[in-house]
Amino acid sequence: MKVSELGEFGLIDLLAKMAGGVQDKQLLIGIGDDAAAWKGDASIQLATVDSFIQGVHFPTGIAPWPELGWKALAVNLSDIAAMGGIPRYALVSLALPPQTEVNDVTALYTGMLELAKKHNVTIVGGDISNAPLVVISITVLGNSPKNQILTRSSAKPGELVAVTGHLGAAAAGLEMLNKKLKFDPPATTRFRQAFFKPTPRITEGQLLLEQGVKTAIDISDGLVADLNQICKASRVGARIDTDRVPVEPKVLAGFGDKALELALTGGEDYELLFTAGAEIIDKVKKATSCPVTVIGEITAGAGVTVVDRQGNPVDLGKAGWEHFTRR
Amino acid sequence: MKVSELGEFGLIDLLAKMAGGVQDKQLLIGIGDDAAAWKGDASIQLATVDSFIQGVHFPTGIAPWPELGWKALAVNLSDIAAMGGIPRYALVSLALPPQTEVNDVTALYTGMLELAKKHNVTIVGGDISNAPLVVISITVLGNSPKNQILTRSSAKPGELVAVTGHLGAAAAGLEMLNKKLKFDPPATTRFRQAFFKPTPRITEGQLLLEQGVKTAIDISDGLVADLNQICKASRVGARIDTDRVPVEPKVLAGFGDKALELALTGGEDYELLFTAGAEIIDKVKKATSCPVTVIGEITAGAGVTVVDRQGNPVDLGKAGWEHFTRR
Repeated sequence: MKVSELGEFGLIDLLAKMAGGVQDKQLLIGIGDDAAAWKGDASIQLATVDSFIQGVHFPTGIAPWPELGWKALAVNLSDIAAMGGIPRYALVSLALPPQTEVNDVTALYTGMLELAKKHNVTIVGGDISNAPLVVISITVLGNSPKNQILTRSSAKPGELVAVTGHLGAAAAGLEMLNKKLKFDPPATTRFRQAFFKPTPRITEGQLLLEQGVKTAIDISDGLVADLNQICKASRVGARIDTDRVPVEPKVLAGFGDKALELALTGGEDYELLFTAGAEIIDKVKKATSCPVTVIGEITAGAGVTVVDRQGNPVDLGKAGWEHFTRR
Repeated sequence: MKVSELGEFGLIDLLAKMAGGVQDKQLLIGIGDDAAAWKGDASIQLATVDSFIQGVHFPTGIAPWPELGWKALAVNLSDIAAMGGIPRYALVSLALPPQTEVNDVTALYTGMLELAKKHNVTIVGGDISNAPLVVISITVLGNSPKNQILTRSSAKPGELVAVTGHLGAAAAGLEMLNKKLKFDPPATTRFRQAFFKPTPRITEGQLLLEQGVKTAIDISDGLVADLNQICKASRVGARIDTDRVPVEPKVLAGFGDKALELALTGGEDYELLFTAGAEIIDKVKKATSCPVTVIGEITAGAGVTVVDRQGNPVDLGKAGWEHFTRR
């Protein structure tokens, strides 16, 4: 059945049913009224929004609907993670062509709800519109019960720059899909998973906050571009040592010389990039099983400098993803 | 200059500057970090989202950018009003073709900020994407300090149905623009204003709550369609008496026989439709200078019946706006 046959209200009822049945003691009203409503509390409140547009953020025909739902939510949960917060509620704004299959929309919701349930996130509202192409815009609301947050603007010269996990696998996944590259099954799975089903570092974000970290961002546009955002907001510079960057081993094996570029500028890894003193970073490393790697240092200058093993600056061109302009 | 020349980050900086300089004691972080952050409180929290899509919600080439910005925010403020709440923060998700003029985007923001400032609403975040068409998706967060809210699901048989203001002017505006109809200058201005710059009934929503009203919705899809939402959510029926419907006098004068249809099914008036006992409605009328008109009654049945002066049912076909299906 197409969404044009079911109609807007029928589709809302169907999706509300899928999203319902949640136990949330503070929630008063979920999907189905003029606005969602819940009991507030005195903790710091967080809100973020990110859109997914067909042909821009996902190649038409390549993205499977459940993965699309997962990822559209994941990028927003990652923003809450980068503040050290706990995601709570999501509002889902969907624009759909009338000829979209209802089964595809429920598949989208299945993927979204799989991730939402993992983190006790409740879909409490949204809207559905007719449109010539698919647009998924998700708002996530969260909080920080510790009454502290991670920001982009608190980096200080002399602090170390560190990153969670390994980098480059999501960009490898996009390259693989776009260029129909072939890899062995474990690499194929890893690249695909990294691109379509990134894991937001929610636990790790809260752990950073607990251990005394003040500054973080999630890697969405690319390591260099996102570190540059920290530099801009904190009015500092930064140096990255290329040989310390934790490139995903399967990306190194599969992409050779190109692997470093994918790790530095590919983006969409949704790992956390943070700065802190050496002592704090040691505490973080001890407190988590997630890999944490120091990759450079905050400096008194401006902008990001990437240097190779010999200390020579590496020219990356215009690194990272910026909408409207070519890389 | 086109947005492709300024780039995503340049445009974000420009819009952040326009939205900035706000005095909000609870706000910790506005535009420019991974998420917006503010100090929470124990009041009931509200959240709503609504999208505006080029060619669907606004005819390409007709909508002036400042009015588009006003309206995209207004429809969300209206949802908060329909809960009896106070709007506080907005997140603006913009999808723009690269060839969009930067001046048009700042004009959009000017219109949005004009309305935002009227109601002390702060734009605290958002995102900007490249897209083949303009999509504006706004999330508004608010609260109800009275720890009560208006819902759709609390209507009881025997209650009266009432509405704020006059109806039909927004639909008249759309007809006028689409069909290039000519009216005298005051009517032209009124229809245009009603369609492009609706006034969300924020003060009135809070007043309804204060006077003991429990049930309300804002008229976005049309009087009959929205009353039907109350009926569905409350498991009741409703009767509307056509001769009591407060049709906008200029619509009556300009559209004759068609005026009632515009008022009943045209939608986008963003007036508040509510139900309560006669005593409460009298108190509401005394407490506000806004016109309040009783138009019918909640019944024990299901669905909305519209009856004329003789008590005969009026057939409206499929009334109100539903996405994906034709009226």
